[in-house]
Amino acid sequence: MTALLPHTSPAAPYARDGHSVDLSRVHALTRSQLVEVEAQLRNLPDLQPEALREAVIHIVAAGGKRLRPAITVLVAGLFSRADDRRVIDLASAVEMLHTATLVHDDLIDGSLMRRGAQTLNAVWTPAATVLTGDYLFAYAANLAARTQNTHVMSIFADTLSVIVAGELQQQFTDFALRATREDYYRRIYSKTASMFVLATTACGVLCEANAAQLEALRAYGHDLGLAFQIMDDVLDFTGDVREVGKPVGSDLRRGLITLPVICYIETHGKDGLECALQGRCAPEAYDAIITRIRHSDAIQRAIEEAQQLGQRARAALTGFPPSPYRDALMDLVDYTLARTH
Amino acid sequence: MTALLPHTSPAAPYARDGHSVDLSRVHALTRSQLVEVEAQLRNLPDLQPEALREAVIHIVAAGGKRLRPAITVLVAGLFSRADDRRVIDLASAVEMLHTATLVHDDLIDGSLMRRGAQTLNAVWTPAATVLTGDYLFAYAANLAARTQNTHVMSIFADTLSVIVAGELQQQFTDFALRATREDYYRRIYSKTASMFVLATTACGVLCEANAAQLEALRAYGHDLGLAFQIMDDVLDFTGDVREVGKPVGSDLRRGLITLPVICYIETHGKDGLECALQGRCAPEAYDAIITRIRHSDAIQRAIEEAQQLGQRARAALTGFPPSPYRDALMDLVDYTLARTH
Repeated sequence: MTALLPHTSPAAPYARDGHSVDLSRVHALTRSQLVEVEAQLRNLPDLQPEALREAVIHIVAAGGKRLRPAITVLVAGLFSRADDRRVIDLASAVEMLHTATLVHDDLIDGSLMRRGAQTLNAVWTPAATVLTGDYLFAYAANLAARTQNTHVMSIFADTLSVIVAGELQQQFTDFALRATREDYYRRIYSKTASMFVLATTACGVLCEANAAQLEALRAYGHDLGLAFQIMDDVLDFTGDVREVGKPVGSDLRRGLITLPVICYIETHGKDGLECALQGRCAPEAYDAIITRIRHSDAIQRAIEEAQQLGQRARAALTGFPPSPYRDALMDLVDYTLARTH
Repeated sequence: MTALLPHTSPAAPYARDGHSVDLSRVHALTRSQLVEVEAQLRNLPDLQPEALREAVIHIVAAGGKRLRPAITVLVAGLFSRADDRRVIDLASAVEMLHTATLVHDDLIDGSLMRRGAQTLNAVWTPAATVLTGDYLFAYAANLAARTQNTHVMSIFADTLSVIVAGELQQQFTDFALRATREDYYRRIYSKTASMFVLATTACGVLCEANAAQLEALRAYGHDLGLAFQIMDDVLDFTGDVREVGKPVGSDLRRGLITLPVICYIETHGKDGLECALQGRCAPEAYDAIITRIRHSDAIQRAIEEAQQLGQRARAALTGFPPSPYRDALMDLVDYTLARTH
C-alpha cells in the first residue's frame, strides 16, 4: 500500500518505466495536516457495534494514498487567508465522502476485495453495509459542516448529487452506449473527477479565491481527476495483481468499458470483443480478450490521453505565483501519471 | 391517504373514538408554503432513468401527511423574523430526509408495501434502490444548504448521524434486550423523534430563537415525535389493514418489539410470547399472539403513554405568546393522538 502519509511511506520516490516521482515536497507541506485528517477519519463517533467500527477503521486505514485531502491542503497553501482548522475539516470531509461512496459501490458491484483487503459487504450483511455507507455520508456531511461555510456545503451537497446521479445513470445505460468516449468521460467525471473538483474548488471558496482562481482550481481538479481515473483504468489491465489487489481486467469482466477498451476498438474494431462489450463472455474468453488489449497499442494511447490531461492540469496552475505549494501540486500530476498501483 | 395538504384533504375533521380533530387552522396557516414544499419534493433534478424518476415521485406523493414540513412552517410562524423562502427550503429538506431514510429502510427490511403502494425495492434492483436512497440524501442536503445557515446544516448532518447510528445499533441488538422500555425509547427517538426535533429546532435557529425558545422547541419536537411513533406502533396492532396499508402486527412479525408488546409483558408476563420475542414464530402463532395483544389492556396503556407525551409537548409551547400558530401546533398534538392511519 502506497500512502502519501509520511508514517507509512516516508518520502519514497515512485518509479514507473524508468521515471521516478519525488513526493518529498508533497510530504513536507502536508505532513502535519494529514496526521490530523487521519485522526478525524478514524474517529467515527457513535459507530457500533465495536467489530463493525473496527472493520470500518480498517477500510479507512487501507485507503491510504490520501491524494484528495493532500490536494486540499496544498491548494490552501496557495492562499494567504487559509484557516488551518477548516482546511483540515474540509480535507477530512472529502476523503470521508470518497470512502462512503466506495462502501456502497462495493456492495452494488458485489466486490469482495478492495486494495487487497476484504470489503465490508464480503463480511457483513447488506443491511449493515447500506447503513454503514449512510453513516459515513452523514459523518462526511458533519465534517463539511465544521467548515462553517455555506458555499462549501452547497458544493459538497452538489458533488454528492453528481456522483450518485452518475452511478444511477450507469446502472441503466445500455451496453451499446457504454463503449463510447462520451459515455466514458461523463462516467469518470461523475465518479472521480467531481471529487477532485470538490477538493480544489471548495478549498478555494474557503480561502476566498477570486473567480479566475476558482476556475483555475476547477480546471486543475477536473483534468487531474480524469487523468487519475484513466491511469486507474490502465492499471486494471497492466497492473500487478498483488499491487492492484484485484484480478487483471476486472473492470471488463464485470461489464465496465474503460478507455483502453475504447482505444483498442478505435484501431482494431470490435471483432472478437462482442461478448465482452455485452458483458457476457465465458471466463476463458475474457482472459484472451484482456491479454489482447493488454499487449496492444491501446494501453499506450490511453496513457498518452492521461498525459495530455495532466499537461492541462499543470497549465491550469500557471496563473498562481510560483511557490512550493504550486510545485507540489505539479508533483501530484507527475505522481498520478507515474503510479503503478 | 390522509394528507395535511389542502388539495388532497380540504380541512376534513379526523375522527377516532368519538373525538374529532379539526385541522382547518393548520391548513390555513401552512397551505401556500406546503404547495411550494410539494413542488420542491417532486422536482428531483437529474434523476434518471425516467421510469425510476416517476417511481420516486409516486413514493414522494404517497407520503402525503407532510406532518414534518407543516411543523416547520408553523414553528416559523411563532417568530417575527422568519424568512419564508428559507423556511420552505428547510421544510422540504426535512421531508426529503425522511423519504430518503424510508427508501433504505424498506430495502433493509425487505418491505414490499408502504402506505398501500409498492416500495422501490419491490420493483427495482437493490443497486438502484441503494443509489436512489443516496440520491435522496444528497437532494435533502442540497435543500438544507439552500437555507444558507451553517448551524442549520450542522443540526441536519447531526440528525442524519443519529438516525443511521440508531438503525445500525438496532441491527445488532440482541432480541433479549429489545423488549425493554429503554431500548424502545432509544430506538424511536433515533428513528422518528430526532427528525421532529430537526423540524422544530432547525427552524428555531433559522428564526433566531433564543436559548429558552430553542429548548422549548426541542422538547415539543421530542415529545410529539415519541407520541407519534407510539401511536404508529399502536395502529400496527389496531389499524384497519386497508388504511394502514400493511398486515396487522407487521412489526412483531418482523421481530420489531414495540410499546404495546412491552406493556403487555409488564402485565401478563412473557408466557406464550417467547417465539415472538426471538423473532421465530410460525405464522399461525403470530396471529394468535397479535390477537391477544390487540384485545388486551396493553393497547390502552400504550395510548395513555402517548397522551402523556402529548400533554408534555403542549406544555412545552406555553412559554410562547398565544397565537394561531401556537394553537395550530397544539392541534397537531391532538391530531397525532387521534389519528387512525
